[in-house]
Amino acid sequence: MPVSMGPNRYGKDGIRLVLVRRGADEDELRDLTVDVRLEGDFDRVHTDGDNSGVLPTDTMRSTVYALAQDSLTGAIEDFGAALAARFLDAAPAAGVAEVTLREHAWGRATVSGEPHPHTFIGGFAEGAIATVTERRGAAPLVRSGIAGLTVLKTTGSAFSGFMRDEFTVLAETEDRILASEVTADWTYLDGHAPAYAETRVAARRALLEAFATHESKSVQHTLYAMGEALLAACADVCEVSMRMPNKHHIAVDLSRFGIDNDRAVFVATDRPFGVIEGTVTRG
Amino acid sequence: MPVSMGPNRYGKDGIRLVLVRRGADEDELRDLTVDVRLEGDFDRVHTDGDNSGVLPTDTMRSTVYALAQDSLTGAIEDFGAALAARFLDAAPAAGVAEVTLREHAWGRATVSGEPHPHTFIGGFAEGAIATVTERRGAAPLVRSGIAGLTVLKTTGSAFSGFMRDEFTVLAETEDRILASEVTADWTYLDGHAPAYAETRVAARRALLEAFATHESKSVQHTLYAMGEALLAACADVCEVSMRMPNKHHIAVDLSRFGIDNDRAVFVATDRPFGVIEGTVTRG
Amino acid sequence: MPVSMGPNRYGKDGIRLVLVRRGADEDELRDLTVDVRLEGDFDRVHTDGDNSGVLPTDTMRSTVYALAQDSLTGAIEDFGAALAARFLDAAPAAGVAEVTLREHAWGRATVSGEPHPHTFIGGFAEGAIATVTERRGAAPLVRSGIAGLTVLKTTGSAFSGFMRDEFTVLAETEDRILASEVTADWTYLDGHAPAYAETRVAARRALLEAFATHESKSVQHTLYAMGEALLAACADVCEVSMRMPNKHHIAVDLSRFGIDNDRAVFVATDRPFGVIEGTVTRG
Amino acid sequence: MPVSMGPNRYGKDGIRLVLVRRGADEDELRDLTVDVRLEGDFDRVHTDGDNSGVLPTDTMRSTVYALAQDSLTGAIEDFGAALAARFLDAAPAAGVAEVTLREHAWGRATVSGEPHPHTFIGGFAEGAIATVTERRGAAPLVRSGIAGLTVLKTTGSAFSGFMRDEFTVLAETEDRILASEVTADWTYLDGHAPAYAETRVAARRALLEAFATHESKSVQHTLYAMGEALLAACADVCEVSMRMPNKHHIAVDLSRFGIDNDRAVFVATDRPFGVIEGTVTRG
Repeated sequence: MPVSMGPNRYGKDGIRLVLVRRGADEDELRDLTVDVRLEGDFDRVHTDGDNSGVLPTDTMRSTVYALAQDSLTGAIEDFGAALAARFLDAAPAAGVAEVTLREHAWGRATVSGEPHPHTFIGGFAEGAIATVTERRGAAPLVRSGIAGLTVLKTTGSAFSGFMRDEFTVLAETEDRILASEVTADWTYLDGHAPAYAETRVAARRALLEAFATHESKSVQHTLYAMGEALLAACADVCEVSMRMPNKHHIAVDLSRFGIDNDRAVFVATDRPFGVIEGTVTRG
Repeated sequence: MPVSMGPNRYGKDGIRLVLVRRGADEDELRDLTVDVRLEGDFDRVHTDGDNSGVLPTDTMRSTVYALAQDSLTGAIEDFGAALAARFLDAAPAAGVAEVTLREHAWGRATVSGEPHPHTFIGGFAEGAIATVTERRGAAPLVRSGIAGLTVLKTTGSAFSGFMRDEFTVLAETEDRILASEVTADWTYLDGHAPAYAETRVAARRALLEAFATHESKSVQHTLYAMGEALLAACADVCEVSMRMPNKHHIAVDLSRFGIDNDRAVFVATDRPFGVIEGTVTRG
Repeated sequence: MPVSMGPNRYGKDGIRLVLVRRGADEDELRDLTVDVRLEGDFDRVHTDGDNSGVLPTDTMRSTVYALAQDSLTGAIEDFGAALAARFLDAAPAAGVAEVTLREHAWGRATVSGEPHPHTFIGGFAEGAIATVTERRGAAPLVRSGIAGLTVLKTTGSAFSGFMRDEFTVLAETEDRILASEVTADWTYLDGHAPAYAETRVAARRALLEAFATHESKSVQHTLYAMGEALLAACADVCEVSMRMPNKHHIAVDLSRFGIDNDRAVFVATDRPFGVIEGTVTRG
Repeated sequence: MPVSMGPNRYGKDGIRLVLVRRGADEDELRDLTVDVRLEGDFDRVHTDGDNSGVLPTDTMRSTVYALAQDSLTGAIEDFGAALAARFLDAAPAAGVAEVTLREHAWGRATVSGEPHPHTFIGGFAEGAIATVTERRGAAPLVRSGIAGLTVLKTTGSAFSGFMRDEFTVLAETEDRILASEVTADWTYLDGHAPAYAETRVAARRALLEAFATHESKSVQHTLYAMGEALLAACADVCEVSMRMPNKHHIAVDLSRFGIDNDRAVFVATDRPFGVIEGTVTRG
């Protein structure tokens, strides 16, 4: 029976990097988790156990730390591009290097009413994400984004007029809680040299403003409005993909206790949950 | 062989309550997870399957929702006390009712430079905690606190002069990263009628300021300084207990790559981790 | 600025279904988590808030429960196919329905040396997985698999002869612990009417036997051997994709304590970890 | 304001130890997570930053690895006792050393119908637990137990005859699913030299048999029956404490779809969940 190796890739997940840049007046703190993947001419690694072209995943790990001081000077996208280029240089058998980064946010602690020079507050679900994919001989492709953007609006969200079949029991509503943990990521128009960090700030502002002000008829409807707002705000962005779980908040029936519950008391549920995924694009 | 029932308790964990209070200008949002426990004369429930004195845990759940609108008007401690009193009323066999609450923080979203009236941002590890324990016939005991306070300082922390034995390999350091996810909770002096929310604000400020400004010789040393600062700032507080995991950040040895790493590049590690627990008390 | 809706889909995640089939002598237990996705002509849902073609995700949930007794009679693949067909029937706007299933394993408890008729033991990381994708007018595509297969071998695994660059510090080894939590899934040859459950049993046996007996030169090398063994054992299978995280076990350097550690004492690490992904295919 | 240090302790959590004992015919595998705590005369560590009496938590970690080959030869309780004694020797300021251990189960893989000599299957929620607490000058106290014992019975469980108040909506049932993830731990009668591993096997068998065969009127009722059975089966055990979350399985109302659901289709829910905790004791 002839058998052969199909598509494959390998790498390292969960490389935890904290970088401190020490200044005269204050320190800067960066906190990243980095994943690396290589694809290429690795068939004989699998079929014959020939490791001669394998850059060990442990080397990927140490490379992230070795390059940090020189290359993590600005946006995570630039650090990702430096890493991807390095991995293609280091591993001739690789045709594609992909680096995925997530930055964990820290804010300066407020002490005596002032931001403190070397003390930080963390513990935020929200963070910047990026994926840099470099194919040998081509320019790197960059996706930038935001993950863990946890939002809730107490009004301005309806869900009605939907299909009903024999198993549909959901009541229509003109006023519900809408909550999500938004992941959004986007690509850039060709030929643009984007300012990644500034774009992310503008993108986040647009997403949040659209979420807040949109009169929502569904999660899908709001997802589109958010994507549209992001494209309007960020001229360099080509398209944006979003994933919005619907974190259901169910009004509790208190009428059996003689208590009126007019959109006041809700159960926040874990599972199951709705998921809406979509891309909004120019043109 | 004579066998008997020893200490026992029962209750409900993970009751998720979201309460919206709708105002003319803006909505208010509360988001809590509540746990309930009853202790008392429940031996025959176990030994004979006699459920006549058992208030079902499902009733605990519905009670939390039923009381929310009237009783969750201020501090979570007051809501906890209302619930504990209710459970003792509802379950004559219970001698002690304990209610544990955790409030999940949401901040108003900033839209067009203004805090938005009905849109909120969440996803914070940090939150308020409280435990109210009421023994029938006695005043409720209240513990208030903060959990998930995630802090890091890039300097101002040493660890040296410790014991060494044959298995000690740790190097002494005069300048390391100190990071923790602090849990702190406290009780109040008898006869005081504490302003729970205001105390928590003052406590948090004191904890954070002490963490930032203390010249730390160990996590223990900083824990004590933080407790001392809290007691100084909060005249109603009797004692404070803290739990401070030491979230180790290990400087990476880059010298083998010819790279100088002067307290710049660190690995944030998950396990194992140090744990420091201690109580600081008046008198 | 013209903006339009790109690719999109929606559905429900985490539908938890437990089905008991009661027999004269013993009960049978099935425990599944089901996810559903629909793709199709849903642009106006996003752009105009027109919900007239939207089958609510809540209806997806209730459909899973409604069909369980009649349709979950054998393999999860058959239940998935029944659900996918139903969703295409129920939602005319949908062009593709995808149902992903994971079965959580329970074994009969042994009581007095016999398998018990109605008591079960659970808590296993390993479980059966399947994805059924049905495009309107075409036969459903089925992927079957196993997730969470947690394996470790104490010998018979080397990693040497790999590339070295300036950041490579990993030592070569001819005898290391190899551990992984394997996910494997496969498709079937056209025109075959596979016996899903029997194939899964044979596939698991082949994967496990290859893992155990293969003289491993790398995770890649073992992944290929496992895929090859699966294809040899399962004549209906067309190709198999595997994901094998490398759960690193690092030998502890005890020489500084005068203790010889000859492949005996290891640290099991969480992060970072290697990841190997690959497909083995016929022909 | 006089302030002083109250109760305190410190240690290391999450020390991951894997030990391979290599035999002529087959290898043995042990996989533990160990936590360590010291209490004692550590006030000045906190108040003055005097580390001279502090055994670093990093030393606790390396001690676990250093002692593994010689001391982890049998029950985890014996390894815990060796560690606790060592820590009291190494840290004169400590008055109490507590070592908590959890063993992660691995079974031999079956290959060609035989248990394989060096390949193992893991991924089980269930595992052995133990806590050894040694006070200087006294004999160590040992608690042994089992955690993660995940059980479900499809019949033989009722819950009726309970209290009802104005917020009680739960229906009585004479036949429900009963499911839990049991944690049980026990102490030993004075003067006994228990065979820890054998006792654990007998205890598990008794717990499981009682769970399966008991006609349950409540989780409390079954908890007591399980404790009673354990004490009957294990003559060395003094008392047993159990924690049994009630993993609710809710029958789905399918009557609105014209479908009869006679204890067949259930939702397995995550939160909230009941919790029953109790101790069963001799005498």
